Amino acid sequence: MTEQKGQLAPANGKLGILLPGMGAVATTLIAGVLAVRKGGGQPIGSLTQMGKLHTAAGNQKIKDFVPLADLENIEFGGWDVYEDNVYQAAVKAAVLDEKLLQSVRPELEAMVPMKAAFDPHYVKNLDGTHVKTYTTKLDLAEQVIADIRNFKAERGCERLVMVWCGSTEIYHESGELHRTLAGFEEGLRTNAANIAPSMVYAYAALKEGVPFVNGAPNLTVDVPALLELAATTQTPVAGKDFKTGQTLMKTIVAPGLSARALGVKGWFSTNILGNRDGLVLDDPDNFKTKEVSKLSVLDSVFHPEENPELYGDMYHKVRINYYPPAGDNKESWDNIDIFGWLGYQMQIKINFLCRDSILAAPLVLDLALFIDLAKRAGMSGIQEWLSFYLKSPQTDANIRPEHDIFKQLVNLHNTLRLLMNEPPVEAATEEEYQDGPAV
Amino acid sequence: MTEQKGQLAPANGKLGILLPGMGAVATTLIAGVLAVRKGGGQPIGSLTQMGKLHTAAGNQKIKDFVPLADLENIEFGGWDVYEDNVYQAAVKAAVLDEKLLQSVRPELEAMVPMKAAFDPHYVKNLDGTHVKTYTTKLDLAEQVIADIRNFKAERGCERLVMVWCGSTEIYHESGELHRTLAGFEEGLRTNAANIAPSMVYAYAALKEGVPFVNGAPNLTVDVPALLELAATTQTPVAGKDFKTGQTLMKTIVAPGLSARALGVKGWFSTNILGNRDGLVLDDPDNFKTKEVSKLSVLDSVFHPEENPELYGDMYHKVRINYYPPAGDNKESWDNIDIFGWLGYQMQIKINFLCRDSILAAPLVLDLALFIDLAKRAGMSGIQEWLSFYLKSPQTDANIRPEHDIFKQLVNLHNTLRLLMNEPPVEAATEEEYQDGPAV
Amino acid sequence: MTEQKGQLAPANGKLGILLPGMGAVATTLIAGVLAVRKGGGQPIGSLTQMGKLHTAAGNQKIKDFVPLADLENIEFGGWDVYEDNVYQAAVKAAVLDEKLLQSVRPELEAMVPMKAAFDPHYVKNLDGTHVKTYTTKLDLAEQVIADIRNFKAERGCERLVMVWCGSTEIYHESGELHRTLAGFEEGLRTNAANIAPSMVYAYAALKEGVPFVNGAPNLTVDVPALLELAATTQTPVAGKDFKTGQTLMKTIVAPGLSARALGVKGWFSTNILGNRDGLVLDDPDNFKTKEVSKLSVLDSVFHPEENPELYGDMYHKVRINYYPPAGDNKESWDNIDIFGWLGYQMQIKINFLCRDSILAAPLVLDLALFIDLAKRAGMSGIQEWLSFYLKSPQTDANIRPEHDIFKQLVNLHNTLRLLMNEPPVEAATEEEYQDGPAV
Amino acid sequence: MTEQKGQLAPANGKLGILLPGMGAVATTLIAGVLAVRKGGGQPIGSLTQMGKLHTAAGNQKIKDFVPLADLENIEFGGWDVYEDNVYQAAVKAAVLDEKLLQSVRPELEAMVPMKAAFDPHYVKNLDGTHVKTYTTKLDLAEQVIADIRNFKAERGCERLVMVWCGSTEIYHESGELHRTLAGFEEGLRTNAANIAPSMVYAYAALKEGVPFVNGAPNLTVDVPALLELAATTQTPVAGKDFKTGQTLMKTIVAPGLSARALGVKGWFSTNILGNRDGLVLDDPDNFKTKEVSKLSVLDSVFHPEENPELYGDMYHKVRINYYPPAGDNKESWDNIDIFGWLGYQMQIKINFLCRDSILAAPLVLDLALFIDLAKRAGMSGIQEWLSFYLKSPQTDANIRPEHDIFKQLVNLHNTLRLLMNEPPVEAATEEEYQDGPAV
Repeated sequence: MTEQKGQLAPANGKLGILLPGMGAVATTLIAGVLAVRKGGGQPIGSLTQMGKLHTAAGNQKIKDFVPLADLENIEFGGWDVYEDNVYQAAVKAAVLDEKLLQSVRPELEAMVPMKAAFDPHYVKNLDGTHVKTYTTKLDLAEQVIADIRNFKAERGCERLVMVWCGSTEIYHESGELHRTLAGFEEGLRTNAANIAPSMVYAYAALKEGVPFVNGAPNLTVDVPALLELAATTQTPVAGKDFKTGQTLMKTIVAPGLSARALGVKGWFSTNILGNRDGLVLDDPDNFKTKEVSKLSVLDSVFHPEENPELYGDMYHKVRINYYPPAGDNKESWDNIDIFGWLGYQMQIKINFLCRDSILAAPLVLDLALFIDLAKRAGMSGIQEWLSFYLKSPQTDANIRPEHDIFKQLVNLHNTLRLLMNEPPVEAATEEEYQDGPAV
Repeated sequence: MTEQKGQLAPANGKLGILLPGMGAVATTLIAGVLAVRKGGGQPIGSLTQMGKLHTAAGNQKIKDFVPLADLENIEFGGWDVYEDNVYQAAVKAAVLDEKLLQSVRPELEAMVPMKAAFDPHYVKNLDGTHVKTYTTKLDLAEQVIADIRNFKAERGCERLVMVWCGSTEIYHESGELHRTLAGFEEGLRTNAANIAPSMVYAYAALKEGVPFVNGAPNLTVDVPALLELAATTQTPVAGKDFKTGQTLMKTIVAPGLSARALGVKGWFSTNILGNRDGLVLDDPDNFKTKEVSKLSVLDSVFHPEENPELYGDMYHKVRINYYPPAGDNKESWDNIDIFGWLGYQMQIKINFLCRDSILAAPLVLDLALFIDLAKRAGMSGIQEWLSFYLKSPQTDANIRPEHDIFKQLVNLHNTLRLLMNEPPVEAATEEEYQDGPAV
Repeated sequence: MTEQKGQLAPANGKLGILLPGMGAVATTLIAGVLAVRKGGGQPIGSLTQMGKLHTAAGNQKIKDFVPLADLENIEFGGWDVYEDNVYQAAVKAAVLDEKLLQSVRPELEAMVPMKAAFDPHYVKNLDGTHVKTYTTKLDLAEQVIADIRNFKAERGCERLVMVWCGSTEIYHESGELHRTLAGFEEGLRTNAANIAPSMVYAYAALKEGVPFVNGAPNLTVDVPALLELAATTQTPVAGKDFKTGQTLMKTIVAPGLSARALGVKGWFSTNILGNRDGLVLDDPDNFKTKEVSKLSVLDSVFHPEENPELYGDMYHKVRINYYPPAGDNKESWDNIDIFGWLGYQMQIKINFLCRDSILAAPLVLDLALFIDLAKRAGMSGIQEWLSFYLKSPQTDANIRPEHDIFKQLVNLHNTLRLLMNEPPVEAATEEEYQDGPAV
Repeated sequence: MTEQKGQLAPANGKLGILLPGMGAVATTLIAGVLAVRKGGGQPIGSLTQMGKLHTAAGNQKIKDFVPLADLENIEFGGWDVYEDNVYQAAVKAAVLDEKLLQSVRPELEAMVPMKAAFDPHYVKNLDGTHVKTYTTKLDLAEQVIADIRNFKAERGCERLVMVWCGSTEIYHESGELHRTLAGFEEGLRTNAANIAPSMVYAYAALKEGVPFVNGAPNLTVDVPALLELAATTQTPVAGKDFKTGQTLMKTIVAPGLSARALGVKGWFSTNILGNRDGLVLDDPDNFKTKEVSKLSVLDSVFHPEENPELYGDMYHKVRINYYPPAGDNKESWDNIDIFGWLGYQMQIKINFLCRDSILAAPLVLDLALFIDLAKRAGMSGIQEWLSFYLKSPQTDANIRPEHDIFKQLVNLHNTLRLLMNEPPVEAATEEEYQDGPAV
């Protein structure tokens, strides 16, 4: 897990947030942060901005307890396969209303994505035009490194983080080439097919000591080679796949069923969404990557191997359907077949009319601010304490991923307490129980 | 909260479970326990029978960790306003199928309810015929005490507990008469109107040192007079209102929204149910008691006073509708209006097709076994650690009720650990995190 | 039913549409018609504007087949208990977006409601301030007549119609006073309590020969006295209660179940809405009027008396809940318990996320244009052929109301064909209509 | 459409109903008819048994108006790829409860399916073992013909009908081989690959003059070659695909939206089912056949070509998911994105918890009895008047299929009236039917 090396450095100067993929999620984040700065909205859904924590000094806002980068001191940048500036991309994404976008239009228009590192083999349903040309993937990585350095210098940033907000790539597994850093770099030189663009970005970031968060279910940094690089450059990483709509609900409801020792016979989850993400996932190879991520969730909550009478025969199916009329309004419908006393069956149906980017944007912000905190605290490698935000938490080999959102939250809180030299107080100590719990 | 006096006595001999109200819930419990004894089903939904706990010795079944009464050593008895034996009442309740009921028919037919202490003023839509006649309420209480003693002697029970499974009484508030035990006993003698039948049962139980659990939202033991009696006789109590369908889901989902700092603008909850419970609640005075119980839930999870931007304007409405076609299949529909990033709105709809008695029966069993454990451990007064099972947890005046089901569970687990002299380990210590959490 | 007297007069000159009640529905209608005139939207949901009909000349738009008032030749006016102009009222109603309202703002601001005829006894949850003072109800009626005449003269209208868009009044039944016109007029003079404000408007309209449509479930013209007046002045009337969300769905789905001879055991309907209509209906007396209207629907579709095995034991319950977060977005949830082959049970759940005024506005337009057509065609009295638009169709005593929306549509089409001297091509001959339809 | 040749023959003697495919639907039908005969249930959902019709003599039961085979005079037989007798198959199908099955067990056990004509190429997820061996497909057809003759003789049937209750075959289109009867028979002799097993059954039936109904979306008789055979032997046919759950609801709700001129932007339909039908449809090739059938529905109701503003941009998507926990309880969830006045959007969600075989069984009965009626009335070829029961109505080339269930019902009623020499009283004259209905 995490490991703290030395003192916690202060959050001085500007933090640059670099976003590979400047579509609906990224533009909703950027426009939102700008609007919040101008008093045009609240950063709802962001723990770093709105959340509280029980501390020795009582219930406190998280941002008053740990030293985080201030919203005023953030610079945004990124890459995209389309050349639209952030205003244009936000208008096309159709997430935020016209009035809000107008209020920050000049700033958004001034932000133009850098050319993307792109490979159509990995994302079949997009045909990007605003892409880098390159000889070898090493060349490509070096171009990204140059972009990072330029951005840092031009914007005068003290620190950088990178959060992947791009598409889901096709399914592939960790192979021989991903086993060591040396092998991986050889692959870059020889243009190996199984180095995905997201790996190129991650490589560039880690090489520069820039923390990397993987917001898609892509393999990316979940391979030994890149973890070796992270260790070498003492850089924290986290992933995979922002936990937003349906899976968010799943990791809320499943622990509740488990708490009550109610059995589950089947769980059917379907989604309809009409944005670029939906289009990409309409390809079976890309969907498989997402499916693997979404299916992993229940087992780690229910532990069927330990509770075979309750969860041993559970049938879990997840479907995603591209449905353009929904636009960014991702909608899920779950049918949960449960059973109770003497095996009698009951059902729960959940219809979540959510907004993909509205749920994702605050996660990007929190992950960026927290992984920057980790870096300043001298923590490196996989940050399991950020599992709270992730559909398919990446963990060290000896750690079982935790999906129960309530346990994830306790873990996040405790990591913050440890960083501030407070003992890990728990979900309900006697004292906290009497005072009322922290929110 | 709880207080342990001396040693934990073993669970020797028979435990008698006395149930005022032998309708759908009670008969489902009794038939189920008998079926389980014969290998005819699993007690799904019961933590005492199926649940596990992380202990020093690893993940263990709760019943292997703490000394609970064994299902083989339980005797059931109770009172009802109708004279049907338990088999007949179970057939009318139409919860369990014919095959299961046939498998335990002789035992069920042998159980006949005692005449009930009843007052039509408190339950308007029932007209009980199998009721005690009495001169004063003190006389009535003494008849119940006699019933208790007879039952204990006839069945050869070592210990007794009483769990209210009767109807919701009309709404009334704690008054002058309920302030002291002396005043209350004077009221019994003078037939004071605001002593409800459930209070007569509770008085009788506590007088005899029999632990009392309140499964309805009735006022009952939530008055100083009866708590004074509980203290005098060193008897534990718990209440109020079994947390089954809609409220169960609410205390699962609300903590999830709070964890993510998502705002809530409105929460509309409606129920349809067609059993005797639904008929009773069709009367506005009885519904009010239930409504107060159900409405209390969200505030204690969301703490709007501390989080006004997120929960300050939440509109919460709960409706229960008597709908005979549903029978015991209580069904709820919730519409939750939430908001995220910059205030953008989303909705969650939850349709829970549940079975009232199937969800309630294991709760009655757990509450009975746990409050018997509390008694043997020398604990008395309000047992807040049993809040996990209750819609509107009764607490000492200085303790804020906890509704978050995940915090309630940690509290329950820790109380068990304390009883067994293990330290209160918490939701996610480092060690537990790595081993994987207990279920 | 309807009766045509003589020739169909052309739709020359301006038609004035007078609206008692200028809240969400009326302002949505007015702003919408103005926007449509300017090319700013389509009048979706309006048969007179978008609908087609099979005629001798092939499929034709209804407005090309029968001579209707053109949208360009409509003037709007009305009364309200608040003094807001139509722009202000539309902003408060929060149905239409700001952009659309701005596009017609000057025209809307120029429209100011006349002072309302109001009686707080009939609408308990509103406290109107913009109301007429009067000595007797006859005086009040004469003020309304003066308003009508002034409006006609000032706007240069050739013809007028009045469509009630006001609140639901408390439940009251037709009594002695409503039996004859003479008795009713005596009641006006003596300020009889059971003359509701809506009756005063209807009296004024009919006295002036202005067709009247009742968009609420109020009693209003459904009394002999006012029908006598309508006959005297040869004026057409129609009612009651615009058929919009849940009831619209009900009269679509119920005929489908009946077509397949599927049985219905129960139908539970609940609504949440947060507009002024919801506030008014939060009072039990006002709700009762609505409930009677909504409950009548199923019996006339299923004919339980003729099909007792299928519909004889159906339990039908309707609930409306005031829920401010919903605003004008009325939402319904229906649970339908059906049974098929050998009595096996199934369920249908329908969740309609509708918009009250968006569904109602085109109905007001169609009803206004069609009842003006009726007037020009010399038809008078109750216009059953407009049942298509109404939740609780008012009919002559010898005609059974038809709720099946598909039969209602055939009837509407045929009336139009008859007016244009085309033969009816039909599911329901006159005779069948009066007998009630076959199942 | 249909054509009556001469007199209507009486329903004397026994009618044999032959069912290729004796799984859930067929066994539910057979057990149900036997139970109804013994007074053990009602044939709910069957128009021939429960439905009424408006006639010159008033509202009458359909079976009292037209001469249909009586339930007492029916013999059942069929083929299946598994050798289970009908009792065993019904137990496995798990549709009907044990008590009902026991009541007719001996009769069911006595019915054993004949060996099936099967080709695993056409149904990939089944591996039938109880199948005929054959040299050529002509040989196979002759074996089926022999089965038909034996059944008729052994059971003493006067007349036979065949209703396909088997699986959905993989998608294939009508080709050169299917153009003429001569070509088709040449294909039978040469074992042509694109002659599916269902075609072999249909060929055998039609050759023998046995009416054939296609209850699956398979191509089967929807090819010129077999229609030529039907014409030659003067045999009526009907198809395709029983209209049960989701599509039934769709053809109920869509006409309602169309009636009100409400626009539709998108319609997403998903299904979960766990029976053998679901298993077969889990294969993409088999699903495609079903998808084509299910997708055809909306266009014929909405006529987007005539109503482009309302339905021109509608996105329609249908998904079927194999989900074993559901068993035969097929469940659908529809999300319908509609728009009204000025284009404002609304949504309808429909969750139909249905039972596949419970809905299908009465359709099989009605189709069998009605197509026998057609045969006795001298009608031959495609019976469009039975579209009411079919998801994808097969029609003559010059007739547009009608999907609106209300128009389908009128058409069915009128055909019955014509057969009994009563005038059609109708929404859809012959001419209107052929042109397509007015909107």
